[in-house]
Amino acid sequence: MHILITGAAGMIGRKLTERLVRDGTLGGRPVTSLTLHDVVPAAPPAAALPVTVVTGDLSDPDAAEGLVAHRPEVIFHLAGVVSGTAEANLELGYAVNLQGNIALWEAIRLAGHRPRVVYTSTAAVFGGAVPDPVPDDFAPTPMSSYGTQKLMAELMLSDYSRRGFFDGVGLRLPTICVRPGRPNGAASGFFSGIIREPLRGLPAVLPVPRDWVHSHASPRAAVGFLIHAATMDTAPLGARRNLILPGVAVSVGEQIAALERVAGPRAVALIREEPDEAVWAIVRTWPQRYEAKRARDLGFRADADFDAIIRVHVEDELGGVVPG
Amino acid sequence: MHILITGAAGMIGRKLTERLVRDGTLGGRPVTSLTLHDVVPAAPPAAALPVTVVTGDLSDPDAAEGLVAHRPEVIFHLAGVVSGTAEANLELGYAVNLQGNIALWEAIRLAGHRPRVVYTSTAAVFGGAVPDPVPDDFAPTPMSSYGTQKLMAELMLSDYSRRGFFDGVGLRLPTICVRPGRPNGAASGFFSGIIREPLRGLPAVLPVPRDWVHSHASPRAAVGFLIHAATMDTAPLGARRNLILPGVAVSVGEQIAALERVAGPRAVALIREEPDEAVWAIVRTWPQRYEAKRARDLGFRADADFDAIIRVHVEDELGGVVPG
Repeated sequence: MHILITGAAGMIGRKLTERLVRDGTLGGRPVTSLTLHDVVPAAPPAAALPVTVVTGDLSDPDAAEGLVAHRPEVIFHLAGVVSGTAEANLELGYAVNLQGNIALWEAIRLAGHRPRVVYTSTAAVFGGAVPDPVPDDFAPTPMSSYGTQKLMAELMLSDYSRRGFFDGVGLRLPTICVRPGRPNGAASGFFSGIIREPLRGLPAVLPVPRDWVHSHASPRAAVGFLIHAATMDTAPLGARRNLILPGVAVSVGEQIAALERVAGPRAVALIREEPDEAVWAIVRTWPQRYEAKRARDLGFRADADFDAIIRVHVEDELGGVVPG
Repeated sequence: MHILITGAAGMIGRKLTERLVRDGTLGGRPVTSLTLHDVVPAAPPAAALPVTVVTGDLSDPDAAEGLVAHRPEVIFHLAGVVSGTAEANLELGYAVNLQGNIALWEAIRLAGHRPRVVYTSTAAVFGGAVPDPVPDDFAPTPMSSYGTQKLMAELMLSDYSRRGFFDGVGLRLPTICVRPGRPNGAASGFFSGIIREPLRGLPAVLPVPRDWVHSHASPRAAVGFLIHAATMDTAPLGARRNLILPGVAVSVGEQIAALERVAGPRAVALIREEPDEAVWAIVRTWPQRYEAKRARDLGFRADADFDAIIRVHVEDELGGVVPG
């Protein structure tokens, strides 16, 4: 089985690649080759199977056509311009997240081999006033250009699947937590920061109230969602190809209590409450909980609880050792 | 005030043009010039004001740029490839209904004058299993490429309005009834046919069960919706720029009872029940009633009842005379 991953150099792309190489199979069939695409060269994994690294921009004409020329049987489409960039640079966001996606769907249609396509969309298709929890059939009103672009691409993925050009599944991922790496400027960054930094013995800032609830998935759960979407029976999806995925919905206070259970009070003492009105003004517009009943019924599994999310980080990023 | 109408040669485009010329004003301001755009030349109305007729295809590069070069203060965007054509000719539908719309939104952004934009979308954004009535916040799942394309363009209209590039309102119109002109091949054609043909003394076929309910708006009400959308205060819309409009929800049997009240039993006797499984298979997938609460609260007014819809047809198409 030949598999294409776009956005392969990103955090989830790398973890997905590692998982596929480690498993050696997908849905019971051997993985025979991988194509890893990104705007920067993806690091090829240590693997016995042939890996092709392709560097390029999906918004370039012919880029998509070249990627599907070898007729990958499964396409994981993770590439995209992130939320903040799409808001700051309107033309870039629409070029990549809308026209780049349209070009990919169209190239797959023209290739004619009807592959499984797994598309990472986003909970940011929702915004403004929403019920808590958000029901599966609630109309999304994106409050960002990023959410708009991802939702437009979702709709075309549905239509192209309905028409039989490919077999698409769109995944609205919860916030990924604990995100490895350095602190970044994203408004959501603190959800990971208040866990990741204290686990390394470093201070972290909490800019929002402790009772604020948010939905999370570990990187390992996110990769599990992608694998499940690539191998599931898509017949029960009918025309509704885009799914809200289940997360672990916890308050910030519950995140911190979980950190104390896993790493003790010294880790928790490194968190400093420092209200930030600018961050809070963004975060408070985000949905908190999602019903995600369809996805659960279709076999998508969230992490067990936030303790499990922290343990995944300790195992996968810290060699299984809790410092302290 | 300079006004641009795309799709001006179509039935609603012609009636909108007539109404604007007759009123001479829009929202209390004089209409000083009209640009009428369509793929075929729109017939210029008998009007004292300057009318420019432009023939062209919005999917052509530079077509949109040319249309907005004179900075129309209000743009009624009615142009598009119809549902059946968009399903039969995938590339044409996406070129016009998606890329043509994107090109228009983008040309308006680049023109920089922030006009009011009134966009005719469609109830065909809904499909498959829906509640009856459909609530305003129910997630649309289009079951056609047409509905997909219109919904994608709605989303971008919302985003460009949120970002302040223009002041957009998207209108999901109910089925227009009584549609003047000849019978056509559309699956919805009989809803108008069973009224229009008997009023002309001609036979009509009813292909679906009499208890089937559907939502209707007269052409006059549809033009009223467009005028209201062009002149309303858009502040209460917030980020939700696309509205389900109110219609008259009646069963086919109630349509026929109204025909009898307006035109007598001889008209009704011209309707022949002839079940058509192919038509019924399409029609039965359509939503029946819509709540349309937001649009009502925002001042959009449906026809009073189906008798009123028939009387509009008699007044506007038959010179006020009921044959008999």
